[in-house]
Amino acid sequence: MPELKTSIDKVAGFSAAGIHAGLKKNGTLDMSLIVADDNCVAGGVFTKNRIKAAPVLVNMEHLALNAHRMRAVAVNTVSANAATGKQGLENSRKMAETVAKQIDCEPEQVFVMSTGVIGTHLPMEKIQAGIEQASANLGNDWQSAAEGICTTDSFPKIASITVNTSVGEYTIAGITKGAGMIAPNMATMLGILVTDAKLSPELVQSTLSESANLSYNRIVVDGDTSTNDMVVLLANGASGIEISSEEDVDTFTKALTQLSTYLAQQVVRDGEGATKFITIEVQGATSTEDAERIAHTIASSALVKTAFYGNDANWGRIVAAAGRSGVSFDANCLSLWMAEGESLENDNLGLMLFKNGAKADYDEASATAIISEKSIYITLDFSVGDGQAIVWTCDLSHEYVSINADYRT
Amino acid sequence: MPELKTSIDKVAGFSAAGIHAGLKKNGTLDMSLIVADDNCVAGGVFTKNRIKAAPVLVNMEHLALNAHRMRAVAVNTVSANAATGKQGLENSRKMAETVAKQIDCEPEQVFVMSTGVIGTHLPMEKIQAGIEQASANLGNDWQSAAEGICTTDSFPKIASITVNTSVGEYTIAGITKGAGMIAPNMATMLGILVTDAKLSPELVQSTLSESANLSYNRIVVDGDTSTNDMVVLLANGASGIEISSEEDVDTFTKALTQLSTYLAQQVVRDGEGATKFITIEVQGATSTEDAERIAHTIASSALVKTAFYGNDANWGRIVAAAGRSGVSFDANCLSLWMAEGESLENDNLGLMLFKNGAKADYDEASATAIISEKSIYITLDFSVGDGQAIVWTCDLSHEYVSINADYRT
Repeated sequence: MPELKTSIDKVAGFSAAGIHAGLKKNGTLDMSLIVADDNCVAGGVFTKNRIKAAPVLVNMEHLALNAHRMRAVAVNTVSANAATGKQGLENSRKMAETVAKQIDCEPEQVFVMSTGVIGTHLPMEKIQAGIEQASANLGNDWQSAAEGICTTDSFPKIASITVNTSVGEYTIAGITKGAGMIAPNMATMLGILVTDAKLSPELVQSTLSESANLSYNRIVVDGDTSTNDMVVLLANGASGIEISSEEDVDTFTKALTQLSTYLAQQVVRDGEGATKFITIEVQGATSTEDAERIAHTIASSALVKTAFYGNDANWGRIVAAAGRSGVSFDANCLSLWMAEGESLENDNLGLMLFKNGAKADYDEASATAIISEKSIYITLDFSVGDGQAIVWTCDLSHEYVSINADYRT
Repeated sequence: MPELKTSIDKVAGFSAAGIHAGLKKNGTLDMSLIVADDNCVAGGVFTKNRIKAAPVLVNMEHLALNAHRMRAVAVNTVSANAATGKQGLENSRKMAETVAKQIDCEPEQVFVMSTGVIGTHLPMEKIQAGIEQASANLGNDWQSAAEGICTTDSFPKIASITVNTSVGEYTIAGITKGAGMIAPNMATMLGILVTDAKLSPELVQSTLSESANLSYNRIVVDGDTSTNDMVVLLANGASGIEISSEEDVDTFTKALTQLSTYLAQQVVRDGEGATKFITIEVQGATSTEDAERIAHTIASSALVKTAFYGNDANWGRIVAAAGRSGVSFDANCLSLWMAEGESLENDNLGLMLFKNGAKADYDEASATAIISEKSIYITLDFSVGDGQAIVWTCDLSHEYVSINADYRT
């Protein structure tokens, strides 16, 4: 497995900038621009929310036209440009146009992303001036680019992986913002991934969809899917390494998934109010879909999350959440374990709390000791098939309520 | 519309008792028994959670056998007898047997209900002694019966309606416990409804299902469906009034729905940590199912509920929750209003915040004034069909987190 770095040195053929455009009142970085020297093959995954923000709709249009020749990604914070009607769409198009003028391409070759309060219009003068300023600052400052997309994030999320092949090396790098849906009005999850490997448009989209499904789509903070979520991948081929054989595709997909998983987990770790990092693994389900649905339901349960916050090894709430997931199963085949940590050592599932539909014989003090840790790994086995899924989540604290009750005021 | 009373004087042919069986450490009432002098026609609605508590499974068996001749309902608190395997089923059957011996019927003519911590076994000696004590206390003390089923409830939920007909009058009465899923380990929602009207088993079941769907199934606290939820209706015919004509059925169903709605709303009002009573009405949806799904998703959203708690008229969170409900709709046809109160006066929807997919022209101070009230009525119109549904919910406060994080410790 190639080693993941928590920074980006350089990705051949890409440049980046993060600047202060006067959007945030506290003077911190609030806009970012990422530009490829040449046309990129691109893919995107977008929110499934029926209320799609204007930039999401515009990007879907642009990607449909130009998956083989995208050039840039521009991001603003503070206003999400969601639920803003026709004016919102016009503003997102104007933002893409401004970028296109600066880097000499067509507006439809530009991705635009917005994150912030729903229902407010983009301050177009500041946005346009910000893009001009960012263009003048383009370079290798990926750290600033990662900071410029943050809203209530307490740290930027940035990482890269360099893969060595027999004919040379290529890099995949990415930045992400968000504290899941914990930062609600400052919505939400954005991801920008770039690589200097060479891939076909179909391959970019399929590897992005596959890796996003195993990483970004496997994190839960409070179950509220945003209007603005999107992740894009740009591949410029500048390394000269072409990904086409089955083995190369497999290696690339694994590296992309590793990178995306790290970045997605950073979102959970930065969950506002979160005090714990929790892994929910469902195994032995009828299908992957069933396993995922059960794991998501548990990870979204307010009762489960408050129990974690209270250091209460309350397996009853976990199995009750599984029971209401909509997945059909035999309760008498269900067992549950709890372990400390972010992964299982030597496949040791830890302390068994629930066995074949009834309480297992365990020591409550041992269970309390495990759940009092900062990282907890829960395994549920349904003993009927091969369906498996992992979802990462955090607990629900007083601080979460404070942040979300007091945000706009 | 017949008038609802928030007490039960007497229902012909039924007696009730609530006693302290030594289950609760604080010495308050913790068991209740309701007995009919003669066989009752009965119906029941049960939790859809795949993890069904032993008493739910036992009652489903009993109802399948004896819908035309049920006799009693026994309820214990403190232990939910859920996720307790074979031993749990044996204990629930033993509980029914004990009641049967006291009132001289078959065990399969008895409903048993349990509410409390998941995964603990019933303390059978105390339960059996409690049933004997309750049998000796049977009378018209419905208030004690309502208190004896409470767990973390801060007040008992009790009501009755007397319907006058051309040939005499009949009464429908009920008690309910629960703070929705807010009292999680002390699960959850139980309802016992009785009437001295005479109905067929099919009619009891169909009117109960219909009214429960419009009342008990329309309340949300945190979206966690319990393992123990159930509502039963017993009809003994003691009033001599037979419900069979279409008009009579309609009147009965309306009265039962009115009673059930009041009791279900009491559960929301008693929501632990709740500071507001919120009505979500969806209209103009493609179907009732769509309307209900959207209203439920909004009512379950942590972001929506924390905004209410924070007096933030954050319509963006509400439309974003609608957007992720899984229902397909055109955002450009969606509008949203907010009003003070528990119902709309003269069909006045209040202040329009969102109009055909974009922010309406309104005064933020007016919106804040409305959402700062204790009762708020939200209306969403999707402008495509006749689908309509109302769901009642409460806000999500710091107190909710405290209660659910600290409960078992």
